[in-house]
Amino acid sequence: MKYLSFLRPNGTASYGRLENDIVYDLKTDSAPTDLKAAIADNVLSTLESSETFAYSQISLLPVIPNPNKIFCVGHNYESHRKETGRDEVANPSIFIRFADSLTAHKSEILMPKVSTSLDYEGELAVIIGKGGRAIAEAEAMNHVAGYACFNDASIRDWQWHTRQFTPGKNFPTTGPFGPYMVTPEEAGNLEYVHVITRLNGEVMQDQPIGDMIFPIAQIIAYVSAFTPLSPGDVIVSGTPGGVGAKRTPPVWMKPGDTIEVEIGPMGTLINTIGQE
Amino acid sequence: MKYLSFLRPNGTASYGRLENDIVYDLKTDSAPTDLKAAIADNVLSTLESSETFAYSQISLLPVIPNPNKIFCVGHNYESHRKETGRDEVANPSIFIRFADSLTAHKSEILMPKVSTSLDYEGELAVIIGKGGRAIAEAEAMNHVAGYACFNDASIRDWQWHTRQFTPGKNFPTTGPFGPYMVTPEEAGNLEYVHVITRLNGEVMQDQPIGDMIFPIAQIIAYVSAFTPLSPGDVIVSGTPGGVGAKRTPPVWMKPGDTIEVEIGPMGTLINTIGQE
Repeated sequence: MKYLSFLRPNGTASYGRLENDIVYDLKTDSAPTDLKAAIADNVLSTLESSETFAYSQISLLPVIPNPNKIFCVGHNYESHRKETGRDEVANPSIFIRFADSLTAHKSEILMPKVSTSLDYEGELAVIIGKGGRAIAEAEAMNHVAGYACFNDASIRDWQWHTRQFTPGKNFPTTGPFGPYMVTPEEAGNLEYVHVITRLNGEVMQDQPIGDMIFPIAQIIAYVSAFTPLSPGDVIVSGTPGGVGAKRTPPVWMKPGDTIEVEIGPMGTLINTIGQE
Repeated sequence: MKYLSFLRPNGTASYGRLENDIVYDLKTDSAPTDLKAAIADNVLSTLESSETFAYSQISLLPVIPNPNKIFCVGHNYESHRKETGRDEVANPSIFIRFADSLTAHKSEILMPKVSTSLDYEGELAVIIGKGGRAIAEAEAMNHVAGYACFNDASIRDWQWHTRQFTPGKNFPTTGPFGPYMVTPEEAGNLEYVHVITRLNGEVMQDQPIGDMIFPIAQIIAYVSAFTPLSPGDVIVSGTPGGVGAKRTPPVWMKPGDTIEVEIGPMGTLINTIGQE
């Protein structure tokens, strides 16, 4: 199944199920207030639709517009670890993105006024279903509600001001997240599914999810060892090699560009670049 | 003025003003729901008290129990930068703490099951009053609602798993924040006020706030350049030299210990160490 958060044609926020280009609106007076709440209540598969829209009629929101916690994993593909010159490490590198940096499929990533080093990072986002602390690796996949495409867009000079990545990973609109969440049943085996990033149609990143250094279950176990996970939390699982910053010469995104992240069953997340 | 968040003797959550050991309860049916909301509405100085308690009758909560964003500044005193061997940098180092890592004055900091390298970091917390983005340094101090003591307690081995500090700074109960918020008018000039940390009565850190490498106004300007600030957000402004990890041999806190952070008009934040 595919689930999404969206604005109805009348501009009100809702969430629903997507099937054959039809959006089944699941938000009714008796339903949970948003997709995060519906995941928390574990009722997505039983909610009845009140209304339908054509997929082309609605405006998407970030898959989960309001996660409590968004964890990003650094250097989780060997190709990217090598291009950044990082040491091999025994544990995943975790930094944090605030929810107000998220943006939707087809919206603009805004180049900020203070920098021009705007880079892409195509990544698989993992959406937590069942929360918990100290989740065992063997149990971790039972805590996944679904998957989506994510672009962990980065303002590189601000990311590298110090060793802590926070500033370069939190500018508004730099976290495209969509178009929809795909349940694990529908996503199937992800090992051979590629994360592909295209800038103006040209492939910049292309690597199978099975190449991750720390697989999803291990990341969930690691993160939940130090902080509780809640329904709707997001783990952005790392980017393959091929980022713009490590090319010679560097490739930066600029206003007017189109950036796409395609991940097999999770579809294609498309954004254009604008100027703040 | 001093403001605090607390549990009434009947166990319900409230917030109030502290004056001469009397807590003036400010949460009424018509008042904002919590201290963060009262700061956002800019009504703290006009709210009328419905009830009073002796300070000894109430249990404190973290000053702001539910900040949207908590920013921590790394290596913001030269003495601590040198002891950690970090390079000099042109911008503050910013990492993030989740709100569920906060704990109150007089509560226990729990040593987690997965580590024994529990360290203290006495720090001045700055509580944002008026939000904003791209706040000019010259205007920044007008965005401060008040100050409080903070102990940025750290699980050092987890902090150093990779270059990103996130894991070691987010274990539950590792963010003591209290006892209360002191308004800028009452706090006065902080330049010569010392941040003093005592472990079982012994002074471990002692340095004036004026020694900060990046002063508060500059940190607010920097942070708001990449992410919007909201009322109740917290900036934990860095720790002086003398942390336990950099002593020979290292000094770790252990169950039964008492750790205090004293900062002049902001009073003394006292916590004991327990075992998870």
